[in-house]
Amino acid sequence: MGYKIGLLGLGTVGTGTAEILLNCEGRHPLLKELEIYRVGVSSIDKPRQVQFAPGVLTTDLEAIATDPAIDIIIEVIGGLEPARSLILKAIAHGKHVVTANKAVISRYGDEIFSAANQAGVYVMLEASVGGGIPIIHPLKQSLGGNRIQCVTGIVNGTTNYILTRMQEEKGEFEAILADAQALGYAEADPSADVDGLDAGDKIAIIASLAFGGRIRLKDVHCEGIRHVSATEIAYADKLGFVIKLLAIAKSNPDSSLSVRVHPTLVPKNHPLASINGVYNAVFIEGEPIGQIMLYGRGAGAGPTASAVVGDILNLVGILKSGDASELHPLLSCSHEVYCEISPIDELVTRFYARFLTKDRPGVIGKIGTCFGDRNVSLESIVQADIRGDLAEIVVVTHDVREGDFRQALAKIGSLEAIESIPSILRVL
Amino acid sequence: MGYKIGLLGLGTVGTGTAEILLNCEGRHPLLKELEIYRVGVSSIDKPRQVQFAPGVLTTDLEAIATDPAIDIIIEVIGGLEPARSLILKAIAHGKHVVTANKAVISRYGDEIFSAANQAGVYVMLEASVGGGIPIIHPLKQSLGGNRIQCVTGIVNGTTNYILTRMQEEKGEFEAILADAQALGYAEADPSADVDGLDAGDKIAIIASLAFGGRIRLKDVHCEGIRHVSATEIAYADKLGFVIKLLAIAKSNPDSSLSVRVHPTLVPKNHPLASINGVYNAVFIEGEPIGQIMLYGRGAGAGPTASAVVGDILNLVGILKSGDASELHPLLSCSHEVYCEISPIDELVTRFYARFLTKDRPGVIGKIGTCFGDRNVSLESIVQADIRGDLAEIVVVTHDVREGDFRQALAKIGSLEAIESIPSILRVL
Repeated sequence: MGYKIGLLGLGTVGTGTAEILLNCEGRHPLLKELEIYRVGVSSIDKPRQVQFAPGVLTTDLEAIATDPAIDIIIEVIGGLEPARSLILKAIAHGKHVVTANKAVISRYGDEIFSAANQAGVYVMLEASVGGGIPIIHPLKQSLGGNRIQCVTGIVNGTTNYILTRMQEEKGEFEAILADAQALGYAEADPSADVDGLDAGDKIAIIASLAFGGRIRLKDVHCEGIRHVSATEIAYADKLGFVIKLLAIAKSNPDSSLSVRVHPTLVPKNHPLASINGVYNAVFIEGEPIGQIMLYGRGAGAGPTASAVVGDILNLVGILKSGDASELHPLLSCSHEVYCEISPIDELVTRFYARFLTKDRPGVIGKIGTCFGDRNVSLESIVQADIRGDLAEIVVVTHDVREGDFRQALAKIGSLEAIESIPSILRVL
Repeated sequence: MGYKIGLLGLGTVGTGTAEILLNCEGRHPLLKELEIYRVGVSSIDKPRQVQFAPGVLTTDLEAIATDPAIDIIIEVIGGLEPARSLILKAIAHGKHVVTANKAVISRYGDEIFSAANQAGVYVMLEASVGGGIPIIHPLKQSLGGNRIQCVTGIVNGTTNYILTRMQEEKGEFEAILADAQALGYAEADPSADVDGLDAGDKIAIIASLAFGGRIRLKDVHCEGIRHVSATEIAYADKLGFVIKLLAIAKSNPDSSLSVRVHPTLVPKNHPLASINGVYNAVFIEGEPIGQIMLYGRGAGAGPTASAVVGDILNLVGILKSGDASELHPLLSCSHEVYCEISPIDELVTRFYARFLTKDRPGVIGKIGTCFGDRNVSLESIVQADIRGDLAEIVVVTHDVREGDFRQALAKIGSLEAIESIPSILRVL
């Protein structure tokens, strides 16, 4: 007796998944019980890396999602529609689903998991975050004894690649983005990556699992890396930091969460500081486990297909050992309550800011006074450079409330001596 | 309906586990269905960090292992006996077992898993390797789609702490070991740690899971760190390496394995090079996943208890969703065949060696000739220093067969000009 798989999509990840399933010698023996029964594609005749028996390929994806012969649907189309509708249709037809689709899960997770619970099927999503790195399974299965305090991730390979090159080459964002696009490390429309939206989808999923509740994507504060300049990277370096696009989900003392994505100054001795290029890593802090970090390639055919196949194996393991009278409580999603996400103004963090000011005595004092008036305690304030007839002043704060910091900045921005505030970044 | 737990042992890990189970607010809700029903200790009256209702503590551990009311046995006594007998007794009485005992599993895993399969129960062992870091579960559940090529771990916190301090303080092994003992980072009898035996147990377990077969512990080549000196660390540093005690399980082209523990020169830019102090990390290479690394504290009450409780949650999840007609194929152990482990002489690796020689012309040539005669190709051979009237010569090879290298060394050691060969280390 085997399990029949319907594969929706035969792009990079779909092809990688098929290659594992069609060539399973040396892998887990359970894979031999799987059959790729149907593959849904947009065009039958396109030349492909993998070959299937006649009749396996079809352009009728809906027929796959509803085919009574199929046990497990693998959704690797990406994008919102038709992925969402096909997942829901497969669930309604009693099929388990494995998906790599962070966009659908972060937006429609509540709808999808409610439907799955009602139908008594599983929706597995390891491949949606961090490529092949086991992140979802550890959060669901291994770390359940912990009170998770904070998850901090580098979960977007494109931006990490760009920031790493900016760091190494002392280059500017636009030029390196263009080169990354030419090399295939960034999309023609790079917005989802460089504006932090992809990382926002992923941290929403991570936060939901780490803190046991639903997350509204609109509550996730996202800033991208377009405004990170070579100047900031150089100053950060002098101060002992590298700049990384971090996705952070943190439990606050009032039991609300802060969930956010933004470029961040990371101390060079922090384990995340040395995660470079297209690599991803997720740093988890919990009680009593302390700190752990999970690291690997965050995208690409091989790593993502590894995660998809891991999910299929888990599913088949459960199906073989269970009577499916009740869903496995660690592998199903029982969240019903939405987590309370605190507004970004309430965030308590350290800040870095750079000011261009007129080069005259007393400016540092005025800036310091504005911060002091708003209870913003400073770690350092230094005149770092002279640019023409302007002075460059760099400030690093202690932990302060973001709202207070912003109010102080507004006041400082209105001072006659201040030319501009080219950069404001948070510090880990 | 809840699940009753029998806890064997109330030392560091047992206490940590009890603390999680007795104080489960904010952790996975499934924990509320668990009850610590009996705790086996050596003395009832000892003052303890955790309190139990009257009648829970008992000195009769065998009665716990055979108690029909108990569903799950947690074995955190450590050591070989009575741990092995109690685990076997619990299995024979139809109980699932969670253990942190790498020594028992690496030596008696075949006996224990055969008994468990016959009885239809699970033996879970995440806590036996790498403290709270999810290593066993990823190898069992997430990475099954891969052909694992190599697993390289820093899996002993004591030796990593000692080597890190030797590196930072330029100190010698004996003095830092004594200090580590005073601070509680090393045992009074440090042999299991510093001679590589603990790491050997762990890499045997990892290899078994990564490569899908049983491992005979006697086939695991173990060298410890007693002979690593401050001189070696200094030379390694100059050459761009740090010295780590690595546990390595690698698949050879002839499909045999090499499984070994030894101090190793690790290039400074390798992710394992920056794993310092008591931290552990496991670096996994597979096809198609590429490289991943899992990192965290490798020991201690909190991390190890986190792993124990993760295993309990997994077990309960399976029990709730299954009819137990068949064991979950990823969580049970179906290995029947022993892996073929190739002898250390067949290993192909790079070497570092340091020679003390008479300071006269021609010595380097003679050493080079001996290596060349045995097909040992050198990357560098340099006279690194003069010590009194002796010259210090440091050699780094390319990849060579260990047997050839050892034969060349024997020949070199017999040369009249060679005073001694104080150090031979492998290079990653």
